[in-house]
Amino acid sequence: MDSAGNRADRERREHLLAALETVKLSLSDVRFVTQRILSKYGLAPAHVDALADLIVAAERDECASHGVYRLAGLVRTIKSGKLNLAAEPSVQIDETSIIRVDAQLGFSPLAFKMGQIALAQKAKTHGLAAMAINRCFHFTALWPEVEALAEDGLVSLSLTPSHSWVAPAGGTAPLLGTNPFAFGWPRPNKEPYVFDFATSVVAGGEVELHRQRNHPIPVGWAIDPEGKPTQSAASAMIGTLLTFGGHKGSALSTMIELMAGPLIGDLMSTESLTYDNGVGAAPCHGELVLALSPDVFLGHKKREYFESAERLFSLILAQGARLPSQRRFQARLRSVSDGVTITRIQHDILTDLLEA
Amino acid sequence: MDSAGNRADRERREHLLAALETVKLSLSDVRFVTQRILSKYGLAPAHVDALADLIVAAERDECASHGVYRLAGLVRTIKSGKLNLAAEPSVQIDETSIIRVDAQLGFSPLAFKMGQIALAQKAKTHGLAAMAINRCFHFTALWPEVEALAEDGLVSLSLTPSHSWVAPAGGTAPLLGTNPFAFGWPRPNKEPYVFDFATSVVAGGEVELHRQRNHPIPVGWAIDPEGKPTQSAASAMIGTLLTFGGHKGSALSTMIELMAGPLIGDLMSTESLTYDNGVGAAPCHGELVLALSPDVFLGHKKREYFESAERLFSLILAQGARLPSQRRFQARLRSVSDGVTITRIQHDILTDLLEA
Repeated sequence: MDSAGNRADRERREHLLAALETVKLSLSDVRFVTQRILSKYGLAPAHVDALADLIVAAERDECASHGVYRLAGLVRTIKSGKLNLAAEPSVQIDETSIIRVDAQLGFSPLAFKMGQIALAQKAKTHGLAAMAINRCFHFTALWPEVEALAEDGLVSLSLTPSHSWVAPAGGTAPLLGTNPFAFGWPRPNKEPYVFDFATSVVAGGEVELHRQRNHPIPVGWAIDPEGKPTQSAASAMIGTLLTFGGHKGSALSTMIELMAGPLIGDLMSTESLTYDNGVGAAPCHGELVLALSPDVFLGHKKREYFESAERLFSLILAQGARLPSQRRFQARLRSVSDGVTITRIQHDILTDLLEA
Repeated sequence: MDSAGNRADRERREHLLAALETVKLSLSDVRFVTQRILSKYGLAPAHVDALADLIVAAERDECASHGVYRLAGLVRTIKSGKLNLAAEPSVQIDETSIIRVDAQLGFSPLAFKMGQIALAQKAKTHGLAAMAINRCFHFTALWPEVEALAEDGLVSLSLTPSHSWVAPAGGTAPLLGTNPFAFGWPRPNKEPYVFDFATSVVAGGEVELHRQRNHPIPVGWAIDPEGKPTQSAASAMIGTLLTFGGHKGSALSTMIELMAGPLIGDLMSTESLTYDNGVGAAPCHGELVLALSPDVFLGHKKREYFESAERLFSLILAQGARLPSQRRFQARLRSVSDGVTITRIQHDILTDLLEA
């Protein structure tokens, strides 16, 4: 009893201390700090703005893995000498339904923004269209992209490789990227139905957050450099992540390598890691976005069938299950009025980046 | 020791008996029996041939869940009075990249075959295209479709709902279909890279095969009618299947409901089951196939980037991991020369269907 009581006391003290070590920021603080840091290292203003939009959106939605914690890595990428700081993405439009955006070795978000309107136009003309973004240093969760397309009334998929940190099912060594897969479905007068998941059990960022916080990782997330299961976030970071859902997740991840790599004439995760050559910059590769127009698919039946989709969402919720981005949309409401909270450790890192 | 010895003896005897109770058939036997059974109940010849192609292909590849075991269900569908026995699928082609095939309440395979050439032409013109098959009684694994498109040099995805036998992650009751997802990638001078998986942990057919063989199912496949985990195949069949990969598989399954349901103006799994109204016919709904042309995406760079893809496959194999359809392609080689084996129980069912 005493021992259990002592443990409970200790845990409570630790919890209170951890809770004290946070810093509250408004969303405009987050934007200001992000823009200052990125500008300070020479990134062109159009890129600074595109990145800041995404980092603010991630913090707002309490997606720590794509928030200000990424700034250190972005600065490393900027300083790597590989990134084109003032890249002007070129958008190539022809008679096909493929929009090609050459990011010119700049960051990806501006390339996406510059191709987005042409992609939507093609999808609305032909029913579906693809955007192939090439030669970008990739930064962003994919949900802001499929959300933006959903706001324009489009159903969309977004796929991208990353760096080869993940083993295929039945394998023991890194080969696949964390390869996220995102989907967006517009909902009239509501936040869209959106999911965005890594095809690894977790994204690499989750493991790093565990390492930073000195937390163990669950069994099944990763194997160590010898190919054995590990709960150490540090071992996992020098070992190999595993795919979710065994051979099915591994197949999906391989599909993403192929469709967002060779199909669009760009690098696979293993090639992107080789290209990085130990610099630790953001992965440089391509991205594939598919957009489908419900107006073209359904015509005058759109209203009727979008009501079917709403029934599906209602039936999911009626079982006590959640829709994929529900927590994120709830956080969004809170953050807009209350601001966001970052850890003291993270705050110190930002201060260092600003003052370095 | 004795007891363990007895058990081992008993298991060996049962194994030997089970091994004896099989019947060997050539692939042309399989085709002949299949065609005879389907014709006997009045299905039009073009549909008989399209279904027989698929059942022979499934037996050839040792995919028992889509082989002759399905004939009893197909006969039930034919006798249901809901199926259009002589349906002539209509293919609608317009200036968009969407091919619409109205199956006219016939079986799906003929509808796919009739739209396939137009789909390929659109993909080769615009870079990508979609085929929406509507109002079909769905029968087939999806891999024969993505394989057929890969033979034509196309990358493709195929999605379809089914009947609502699967709970969403966090839920307790049937809502989603087993919702298969298939992908095909053409490989020069080789069998294509192909996967086709149910987004439920297993397909409903697997559970029924376990029930027929009186085998327990693994934990995690299904919950019973009260929403509790079960290892009884019989309970699972009146209970609810679970999605693979937790919330990620559930999200993917929901995406398939939306894209191969409302987006193409057709039924979702829960609506399809309602439409069946207890008859136990094949599910009646739609299917979405997306085809992408590497020639349009890559132009003169196709050779170079298809070699990248081959490197990825080599690296997967070099780790001792398998490519998704490898076992199936190996079975194919065996079956073409040696024929296939079905259980005595299955053979008796076929005999009954022929003689009924």
